[in-house]
Amino acid sequence: MPIDAPDLWIILTAASVLLVRAGLGLWMIGASRSKHAASAGIRGMAEFCVGMLAFWAVGSAILLHTHNGVLGLAPRLLIGLQTPGVSACYFAALVLIVTAIATSAIAERCRFFVVIVLSVLVGAVLVPVVGHWVWYGWLGRVGVLDVSGALAVHLLAATAGLVASVFVGPRNGKFNHDGSTNMIPGHNVGMILAGALLATAGWIPWLAGASTLAGTPRVPAVMNALVAAAAAGAASMFLSFRRFGKVDGALLGGAMLGGLVAISAAAGAVPGWAALIIGLVAGWLIPTVTVFLDTRFRVDDPAGSVAIHGAGAVWALLAAGIFREVPFLDRLRQTGVQLLAIVVVVLFVAIVTGLVMKGVALVAPLRVREADEYDGLDLAEHDVNAYPDFQQTMIKSYHLREA
Amino acid sequence: MPIDAPDLWIILTAASVLLVRAGLGLWMIGASRSKHAASAGIRGMAEFCVGMLAFWAVGSAILLHTHNGVLGLAPRLLIGLQTPGVSACYFAALVLIVTAIATSAIAERCRFFVVIVLSVLVGAVLVPVVGHWVWYGWLGRVGVLDVSGALAVHLLAATAGLVASVFVGPRNGKFNHDGSTNMIPGHNVGMILAGALLATAGWIPWLAGASTLAGTPRVPAVMNALVAAAAAGAASMFLSFRRFGKVDGALLGGAMLGGLVAISAAAGAVPGWAALIIGLVAGWLIPTVTVFLDTRFRVDDPAGSVAIHGAGAVWALLAAGIFREVPFLDRLRQTGVQLLAIVVVVLFVAIVTGLVMKGVALVAPLRVREADEYDGLDLAEHDVNAYPDFQQTMIKSYHLREA
Amino acid sequence: MPIDAPDLWIILTAASVLLVRAGLGLWMIGASRSKHAASAGIRGMAEFCVGMLAFWAVGSAILLHTHNGVLGLAPRLLIGLQTPGVSACYFAALVLIVTAIATSAIAERCRFFVVIVLSVLVGAVLVPVVGHWVWYGWLGRVGVLDVSGALAVHLLAATAGLVASVFVGPRNGKFNHDGSTNMIPGHNVGMILAGALLATAGWIPWLAGASTLAGTPRVPAVMNALVAAAAAGAASMFLSFRRFGKVDGALLGGAMLGGLVAISAAAGAVPGWAALIIGLVAGWLIPTVTVFLDTRFRVDDPAGSVAIHGAGAVWALLAAGIFREVPFLDRLRQTGVQLLAIVVVVLFVAIVTGLVMKGVALVAPLRVREADEYDGLDLAEHDVNAYPDFQQTMIKSYHLREA
Repeated sequence: MPIDAPDLWIILTAASVLLVRAGLGLWMIGASRSKHAASAGIRGMAEFCVGMLAFWAVGSAILLHTHNGVLGLAPRLLIGLQTPGVSACYFAALVLIVTAIATSAIAERCRFFVVIVLSVLVGAVLVPVVGHWVWYGWLGRVGVLDVSGALAVHLLAATAGLVASVFVGPRNGKFNHDGSTNMIPGHNVGMILAGALLATAGWIPWLAGASTLAGTPRVPAVMNALVAAAAAGAASMFLSFRRFGKVDGALLGGAMLGGLVAISAAAGAVPGWAALIIGLVAGWLIPTVTVFLDTRFRVDDPAGSVAIHGAGAVWALLAAGIFREVPFLDRLRQTGVQLLAIVVVVLFVAIVTGLVMKGVALVAPLRVREADEYDGLDLAEHDVNAYPDFQQTMIKSYHLREA
Repeated sequence: MPIDAPDLWIILTAASVLLVRAGLGLWMIGASRSKHAASAGIRGMAEFCVGMLAFWAVGSAILLHTHNGVLGLAPRLLIGLQTPGVSACYFAALVLIVTAIATSAIAERCRFFVVIVLSVLVGAVLVPVVGHWVWYGWLGRVGVLDVSGALAVHLLAATAGLVASVFVGPRNGKFNHDGSTNMIPGHNVGMILAGALLATAGWIPWLAGASTLAGTPRVPAVMNALVAAAAAGAASMFLSFRRFGKVDGALLGGAMLGGLVAISAAAGAVPGWAALIIGLVAGWLIPTVTVFLDTRFRVDDPAGSVAIHGAGAVWALLAAGIFREVPFLDRLRQTGVQLLAIVVVVLFVAIVTGLVMKGVALVAPLRVREADEYDGLDLAEHDVNAYPDFQQTMIKSYHLREA
Repeated sequence: MPIDAPDLWIILTAASVLLVRAGLGLWMIGASRSKHAASAGIRGMAEFCVGMLAFWAVGSAILLHTHNGVLGLAPRLLIGLQTPGVSACYFAALVLIVTAIATSAIAERCRFFVVIVLSVLVGAVLVPVVGHWVWYGWLGRVGVLDVSGALAVHLLAATAGLVASVFVGPRNGKFNHDGSTNMIPGHNVGMILAGALLATAGWIPWLAGASTLAGTPRVPAVMNALVAAAAAGAASMFLSFRRFGKVDGALLGGAMLGGLVAISAAAGAVPGWAALIIGLVAGWLIPTVTVFLDTRFRVDDPAGSVAIHGAGAVWALLAAGIFREVPFLDRLRQTGVQLLAIVVVVLFVAIVTGLVMKGVALVAPLRVREADEYDGLDLAEHDVNAYPDFQQTMIKSYHLREA
């Protein structure tokens, strides 16, 4: 990834990523129930701090080493001994996106320290290793096409979140004994959708900056992103209207974000009509995977992050191969490379995350007590009520709790 | 509109416009009642998707054709056959502002598909035609001064919204039989004002970018925008304090946005003292028009968009003529040109929108059923409760509804 | 402060500051109780308008005069007679940050006009005078190191807010007769934390722009800011976990903002390990000062602004001296200069603010009536309910109020 843009553009790109993060933060707070809303916010800040420090102290030395294309360490970059180049600011912002996505999959029932562990893992190991492969190492050398982080951000985050969610287990009351599934609505739909709009505003300069860094065209990247997001939203509206007779807000917002994820590998390297198809497919894929994860695989993912970022990224990477404007054989080879990258990243992230979660589970339970989950993590873990001035519809049991 | 700025600036300008859009989105969700809050958000995303696709598939080919200054089509730009230049990214973002403003005027009572129709109309026809006139065509050639979209964004959006609102009719309970009017407060004043602050933050780089594209000075543009917004807010505070003995939040926020609209035609082409006057007048005009529309003309506009963007834009265009620093006769001629542009755009947009709404009304009713409006569009159209964890003050009638 | 960056960068920096302001606005609305939430938003817009006009009409002429390094006036800049250079856009945005911080300390109980008076004071006098000293005058000449406004923004705002808060007195029910203190929680924790995330996103380009203006390295500035914020947050989590057995959200968010304040003087002029220490100390200092102000000094500061911006800025300025990479004696001298600057600014701002508040208190009471505070400023001053559709947990007394 040659960097020929002035450093200010890269700093702006990093700031845009943080704007996306603020949008995702709103999304995730809104998607939780009101009794877990402060927890969602506090965990969001906690993983920001911890993930950032882990990346700064260790991760950047792994990501930016120049020994080989697989795994190494640049000791001079450990614990900030030397200030890394400007690209590290951008990578740091990406880490903060990953921690937000991954930890959202275990929200509302895992214990606070699990969020910390997962954030350290993401910032110190997962993003640095995979990022090195993609941006400086062997995956980049075999020619994977991934302009703005489908592999090292979205797929990685979704895989880590999925594995963690399986280890932690679903929220209480999510899945019924008879095999049916309950939909647990977030407490503030307006906040969810405002978060999606904010994320969209930040996504455009992010994609433009990433295209500049990757050397792919940036004007088509922006146009493609807008088209893909819009097409995905439109497709999901059509789908949910046909299936449920209603346009579903969560599926629509998720599809739009999924459309942005789905264009993140190809960005400006594919023609406009391909962006339309990428978006339309994403708008069918994300809601479908969301519903499948929920009803068939019985994986609990409160904010829909696994479908949006996981399925979105897989499709993004394949689409970048399929629609790249090269001769047919090269296109086939490109698609093969993309598939290889998907498999390798999913396996690596799943195995490492699984081992870590397994190890942690041996030391301490991953879940809060059932009564704490019932009362809400706000009360149980942080002694606050996110909305102390409002009458809420839940019943508090704390007067009956054992000490 | 010669484009001598590097493309990255234009992309950033487009992103800033999307930030304004996120702010307007917050404004419009907050300005609706809680039983319509999810609907406000979902419709916001729906018109984003549909308006964007309409512009991309058809609109950009109309806007960017080079055949003449009135009406034409560049077939090579249809359905993204060829990626248009970077200015199309900026214009696309402007389309999304227009759809947000126009559809907000028919919120809380029109049926979902009317939002879709209006968004297609805006993205495929209205903005492209008017935008072509202003930026590439005859209105630009006769010398209209409109730096950042007073005509093609604000006036157009307000006119379309006004006409649509008249066709759809007011919300139930808005106007009483005895001629009096009820004020229907939004459900979240904090969200409204946070949206205004966010829109202000995005407005500054938008105006700077648009000034760069228009070749007018950009530093005075920024200063003028801040002064106009502040003066408008101050004037509205004075006004509402004198009239009601209280500072009214909605009028204050609306006046600040109106001040930003009011400077959008002249931007940096007028001196600082003129920006002060433009703002002060806007701060008197917007609240006055808001109240007049409400109590005299009995037009229902839940988020105040018609007054803010319509009256704001008319004043913006006239002020750009009045205060332009040219000899008196030129100034007179300029003001005449501005007046001509206002009349032409209002007539064109009103007629086209009126015909479309009329046509649509022949096919299907524009309004939801009275019981649906009473229960809220969230429940009626999307089967959700925007705030499921909170006790709300409304009575649900759905157990009595016929199927 | 030589300005060698193109004006567009400075405009973008100003816009980033306004984004931070939007984030602080969310913070302050969320930190108030629901019965004062509209008031928090309306006052936020009011001080924006008034502070901006005061700076434009008078302040910029004081800040940008070139007569001497202490106090003067450039008549040609009064009431916008001549458009000042682009740096004035940046300074104007900084004024709006200061008014937001200072007035937040007297929220929920002072009368509306006190906010107006304080905003005029800040925009017309305090920021211009101190800013002139730091950026063009004697403080700059003696070599104070303050890259992005620790003196003229954060310390100034916190001092003015502290003095005003002492004059206005604490909120009813805040301090008990037996010496104990009540914690009064904000009404929307999610909004508080979303505001912090938004402010963080805006802070990065702000710091990069300010570093460019100050001629200090900007890439290390961004990295240091992220590290300092993260370290401060981590330290506060550790602290509140040790002290209360729980991670406290308000302290965590405050510590993160405090970490950003604490790096604002040194920015990129100190090495990365120093940023870590600066952040860790800030993460201990801010919560400690917050609790001390609350329980020992019995100063009421609803949004925690005095601790975050005051203690944060003092530490920022000292740290900039302590960690600057110069020979030991120079470092000592630098630290002395920083200390001098702190003392001078605190004294100047405290005396001027104190005199003004004293004078105002002679004319009219600074506080609303006790019954109005009880009912909420939303009802008492603005005749609105910020959340009219929700059942809230407070009791309204207004049916018993005398006219």
